[in-house]
Amino acid sequence: MDIIKGFPATSQNSSQLNIINIIKHAARNFGRQEIVSRKQDGKMFRYTYNDAYERVQRLASSLTSLGVMVGDRIGVLASNSYRNHEMYFGIPGSGAVMVLMNPRFTSQELSYVVNHAGIRFIFVDDDLLHIVEAIAPMCETVQGYVILTDKKLGDMETKLEPIHSYEDCLSKAAPAYEWPNLDETCASSACYTSGTTGKPKGVYYSHRDVYLQAMMYALNAKISVMDCVFQIVPMFHVLGWGTPYSATMTGAKLVLPGKYSLEGIDKIIKILVQEKVTLSAGVPSILRAILNHLLKMDPSPDLTGLRFLCGGSEPPLSMMKSFWDTTKTEIVHTYGSTEAQAIVTLNLPKPWLNKELSEEERWEQKKKQGYIMVGLDVKIVDSSGKELPHDGETVGEILLRGPWVLGKYHDAPGSEDQFTKDGYFRTGDVGAIDSEGYLKLTDRTKDLIKSGGEWISSVDMENEIVNHPAVFEAAVVGLAHPKWEERPLALVVLRDEFKTKVDKKEILEHLAKRFAKWQLPDDVLFVETIPKTSVGKIDKKLIRIEYEDVYADR
Amino acid sequence: MDIIKGFPATSQNSSQLNIINIIKHAARNFGRQEIVSRKQDGKMFRYTYNDAYERVQRLASSLTSLGVMVGDRIGVLASNSYRNHEMYFGIPGSGAVMVLMNPRFTSQELSYVVNHAGIRFIFVDDDLLHIVEAIAPMCETVQGYVILTDKKLGDMETKLEPIHSYEDCLSKAAPAYEWPNLDETCASSACYTSGTTGKPKGVYYSHRDVYLQAMMYALNAKISVMDCVFQIVPMFHVLGWGTPYSATMTGAKLVLPGKYSLEGIDKIIKILVQEKVTLSAGVPSILRAILNHLLKMDPSPDLTGLRFLCGGSEPPLSMMKSFWDTTKTEIVHTYGSTEAQAIVTLNLPKPWLNKELSEEERWEQKKKQGYIMVGLDVKIVDSSGKELPHDGETVGEILLRGPWVLGKYHDAPGSEDQFTKDGYFRTGDVGAIDSEGYLKLTDRTKDLIKSGGEWISSVDMENEIVNHPAVFEAAVVGLAHPKWEERPLALVVLRDEFKTKVDKKEILEHLAKRFAKWQLPDDVLFVETIPKTSVGKIDKKLIRIEYEDVYADR
Repeated sequence: MDIIKGFPATSQNSSQLNIINIIKHAARNFGRQEIVSRKQDGKMFRYTYNDAYERVQRLASSLTSLGVMVGDRIGVLASNSYRNHEMYFGIPGSGAVMVLMNPRFTSQELSYVVNHAGIRFIFVDDDLLHIVEAIAPMCETVQGYVILTDKKLGDMETKLEPIHSYEDCLSKAAPAYEWPNLDETCASSACYTSGTTGKPKGVYYSHRDVYLQAMMYALNAKISVMDCVFQIVPMFHVLGWGTPYSATMTGAKLVLPGKYSLEGIDKIIKILVQEKVTLSAGVPSILRAILNHLLKMDPSPDLTGLRFLCGGSEPPLSMMKSFWDTTKTEIVHTYGSTEAQAIVTLNLPKPWLNKELSEEERWEQKKKQGYIMVGLDVKIVDSSGKELPHDGETVGEILLRGPWVLGKYHDAPGSEDQFTKDGYFRTGDVGAIDSEGYLKLTDRTKDLIKSGGEWISSVDMENEIVNHPAVFEAAVVGLAHPKWEERPLALVVLRDEFKTKVDKKEILEHLAKRFAKWQLPDDVLFVETIPKTSVGKIDKKLIRIEYEDVYADR
Repeated sequence: MDIIKGFPATSQNSSQLNIINIIKHAARNFGRQEIVSRKQDGKMFRYTYNDAYERVQRLASSLTSLGVMVGDRIGVLASNSYRNHEMYFGIPGSGAVMVLMNPRFTSQELSYVVNHAGIRFIFVDDDLLHIVEAIAPMCETVQGYVILTDKKLGDMETKLEPIHSYEDCLSKAAPAYEWPNLDETCASSACYTSGTTGKPKGVYYSHRDVYLQAMMYALNAKISVMDCVFQIVPMFHVLGWGTPYSATMTGAKLVLPGKYSLEGIDKIIKILVQEKVTLSAGVPSILRAILNHLLKMDPSPDLTGLRFLCGGSEPPLSMMKSFWDTTKTEIVHTYGSTEAQAIVTLNLPKPWLNKELSEEERWEQKKKQGYIMVGLDVKIVDSSGKELPHDGETVGEILLRGPWVLGKYHDAPGSEDQFTKDGYFRTGDVGAIDSEGYLKLTDRTKDLIKSGGEWISSVDMENEIVNHPAVFEAAVVGLAHPKWEERPLALVVLRDEFKTKVDKKEILEHLAKRFAKWQLPDDVLFVETIPKTSVGKIDKKLIRIEYEDVYADR
């Protein structure tokens, strides 16, 4: 998109949207507000935005002492703690780039990230040291390690060198720092996508991105100094969805859980209740675990006023209802991605819909991903790139444009096809947008079968096959076809008691009730098991390879 | 301020913060929301954001037909109506600059603005035509007039030519428009300060300014689609304080009062109640008039949930309390200026202050101007430019920096001294900032007397003289003094019954109870009247000229 010059304005154009201004603002106006952080020993550490801002300045001073320059990349491998929150400001504020390292990556992926980003120093939680130790021999650019720990450096057992203590660095450093006036379009931080195919790809967020996203998020989630925000989303996931920045910008009380797991979810609930949390966010699996625990409590706590953003995938309606019935917690469905900085849509109500819809319809409405947030431009297109109507029915690929949407992957040749010529990012998600602007996702493009220029949803088809009482599980993939480009193949595992009692014809007849004739699979194969990935998802890549030539000669 | 380049980000940098995206967003997601506008005949015109956006596109198409180019300046002289709201988007969206013309300016001032801005077309309400007719012979650059009217063009009696009808233009124009991707730092609109000294000065707001201000305002005033926003502040005053943009961005219902006056305030109240307004803004004189009318109603309406921003000058505590007691309306004190796009501070509560302060202290707190909004940088300095502490006591001049703060006046040689070398705008306002960030204004710099490097508040001194029972009114000005730079002179008008019974010594002794000896006026002159400006303020400029040499030889 060309940028057109108009008449000159008289504004202060040198005023940049910098991340450091967010916490400066918090220290100046909400200096006494609390930040609460759960330590490894389970104790709650408490200090204020004022305290935090002094340590953020010390952190920046100590980066200078370490020789870190504007533009350098710094790796961070850490749980959600007050120190992580300090790094969120001190590292980008100084002009360096905070590269968030995901502890769930394989050593191969993680060392690739370190080398690709050219990381000079890695800041790491003491209890995650083993992850860094495993990749250190493969990391070519790293000059030192800063350990986030309450222990003395001499008491640490590690092969890494040279090592520094975060706390020692801060206590030696100057408590005031002259922040550079950074060009807002420069990188503040980076996240790498895990990438089911190929190598991780880097998304480098500018200061402007992060600032605008934080403001948009706070505006739409109505975050204010009256709130208590609980940072459950890992801060290595898309900047914790931007919540740490939104909370700081608005002076909300911020609560950080430290390291936690689904098994220790009771600790999360305890904090939720004790700190009187009013806003949090997480993926459905976390919410499910929280709900299950809440249901077991007698009585279940009253969490009135708590809004819980749920993203990653669609929250089941039963879960949303149960949260509300049990604790008066409101689940707000949100949609985003690493490439679009976490929050693209929020499912917020509208007064006229509240009047027009029945209670059940309002619940159904809450399942949608929500409407596009201000600042972003969205369109849905068919496979030829033609824009489709927002009628709630027509399904197409979701394209995004806007300040906090990816324009290109960092140094990733071959990834250009994820962007359109007119500057949209191809999300790879497929769905419809209704006349009210609500997006409803149906598929990922990679789960769609392209047959004769039309799409068939493999996910829908799988769900429908599984609805047949004889079926245990099913997978549907698109296979190359000389005439139709792709045609569906269904793999079906029957329940033991139905083995040999159900044939292809019966499955096709079952499907014909919901699918058009041309959409039905050309073949249905009965198998013993369906290949799965390491995280338990259907391994469609493997299925496609195994059955590659099935339709080749038809 | 230099801008430092860092590591490149991967964002969509061509995505600009453009005003047109605000109403596109509203049409897409809040298309059915209402805009309500009072017509001249008193009837309420109702349509939706969808309807508005179509007309905004038609407006832009018709600008092209008129020959308007990117960067051209278009004058707007209009009351708060749906057409004005359309122009707020259509004119800047097309790339032209909307220059807001203040009908309260003198003909001399207004024609100066038109020529200084180089306005090509003037859009004018039919009932404000006489103002344009009076200045037309002096306007050198205007090529045509577009009349905002329900009447037919043939029925209009006017000497202006050529004239166009806004409605005819729109109905002939294409209903879709391809918006240019404008550089966000370019001018979207302009306001001219009335300027008690010298000629009006132009402030040209960039698209970025307006967008960021609108977002910040909506965030802090918590505006959402659930709100009903009543645009009482004239839209020719600092973009109506940005409220039309904030309301549109959040999809709030927007109510526009048309032309109104303090005498017809009952019409405003009727709308306030009938439309269930939840947010509005105005200067204390409007609020006072509204309150007086509300108090006379039996019963006074319950306006629970209504927040009323009050700016321009400090709202009296009694007024704020009475609003609350009578109707549960919450008055929120705000501070800003044409140069800082209306909203610089808002007086918002904090949970810890709510706990710590008594009810009476909380009311006192509400008198302060509030804390600085996110995005802006503030400092207070003494006369030498040294930064002063935020202790709530130390008083200095307020300097501002930030995206929506003026960097320079448009083409106004000699105005450079209103900016510091490090890029701050000198507001000319004097006050203190407390440790919580709340600003409390005490004076305008031009009302301060600079004596031997120290400041004396002329306003405080006037108030104290008037507290003497014999005094009817008083004025205090600083006059040039060879030794002290300036020294105060007091002019006093005695009440008839005290004439000749009070002398200079008595006035000085009265003042000495509250002022230091060095602050007391060098002379007190008893006069019959005090010179006033056309709007009834003490004309200090005239007094200074008249008494110019009084201290010259001392």
